[in-house]
Amino acid sequence: MTRPIDFYFDFSSPYGYLGSERIEALAARHGRVVEWHPILLGVVFKETGAMPLTQVPVKGDYSRRDFPRSAKFHGVDGFRMPSRFPIPTQAPARIVLWAKTHDPARVPAVVHALYRAFFNEDIDISNPDAAAAAAARTGADATAARAAIDDPSVKEALKAENERALAAGVFGSPFTIVDGEPFWGVDRFDQMDRWLATGGW
Amino acid sequence: MTRPIDFYFDFSSPYGYLGSERIEALAARHGRVVEWHPILLGVVFKETGAMPLTQVPVKGDYSRRDFPRSAKFHGVDGFRMPSRFPIPTQAPARIVLWAKTHDPARVPAVVHALYRAFFNEDIDISNPDAAAAAAARTGADATAARAAIDDPSVKEALKAENERALAAGVFGSPFTIVDGEPFWGVDRFDQMDRWLATGGW
Repeated sequence: MTRPIDFYFDFSSPYGYLGSERIEALAARHGRVVEWHPILLGVVFKETGAMPLTQVPVKGDYSRRDFPRSAKFHGVDGFRMPSRFPIPTQAPARIVLWAKTHDPARVPAVVHALYRAFFNEDIDISNPDAAAAAAARTGADATAARAAIDDPSVKEALKAENERALAAGVFGSPFTIVDGEPFWGVDRFDQMDRWLATGGW
Repeated sequence: MTRPIDFYFDFSSPYGYLGSERIEALAARHGRVVEWHPILLGVVFKETGAMPLTQVPVKGDYSRRDFPRSAKFHGVDGFRMPSRFPIPTQAPARIVLWAKTHDPARVPAVVHALYRAFFNEDIDISNPDAAAAAAARTGADATAARAAIDDPSVKEALKAENERALAAGVFGSPFTIVDGEPFWGVDRFDQMDRWLATGGW
């Protein structure tokens, strides 16, 4: 079996960022590739009644302590909590979906560039120009990336991505599906690793 | 430093059960002992607006899949989802608090006996007689354990335990505090292990 690993993430998710930095190496160890699925957590939260983690009483304070601690634990350097958080993520998500159609080889680099701009450099990638500029650092076409954010067909593609995520049972970020088996959170990566090694249990 | 590790748990929490089966070995590796804190998640959920995991749309279905998978991953044999779930846990929590005062050496055995009765044998430990009988398997005084459930001073002790947990920032189960550093979930045990080994980072 060499089906891709489906990696669902929201660009405003710190744990999604940590997962994005580790998922390719994990997949590669098992001869798999990553299918990147940018989604809007706000849409899926409507189904579960969840709210952004940092806004939950008590739990929010814990999460702000856990983000940098978990970054260090997972060996992800440079994590810095953005000054504006959470942010709407239509702009970066649409750029990735545009790249999946028009520049597929560059998708992983574009994901990393956008995530790192937000979580390392405190660049507000909810701003379309800032998101396009961050993506363009990878060599992607800045003008086309910027135009994609307002492109009705790309907007539709993001809606479809969210609907497929909901249909697949996705309710958080990161959320990874391996041959139909769902794993929520970067803290399930070790289970997923063993699952891939053993073919389940 | 040889301060005990504070382990907060609710007897109706599957991840609390998994944590209870692993915390002593983890603590012992670092020359620590475990201080057991039975709490009522319902009380702390009022602060955070949370609800029992299995009752959350979408996430609930995932959790029922993740419980047995995580049990196997953590090497905990015998996990079986109880037929009645969640349950109120005043009875087992009060027995543990009674034991902490009257039979302290037996506390870990009593915690394990109660948790295993519920999560291995599907015994409804919300029933005071069933909880006392499960505790008595360890050699604890069955009559005294049963009486403790209705003892006003033990009821007060549980209220005080919940209040201290809230004051300490506890919002889930298991929730472990190591020298002031909070770790939520059995999926933070590996971070806690490294934290103890390195003295933080």
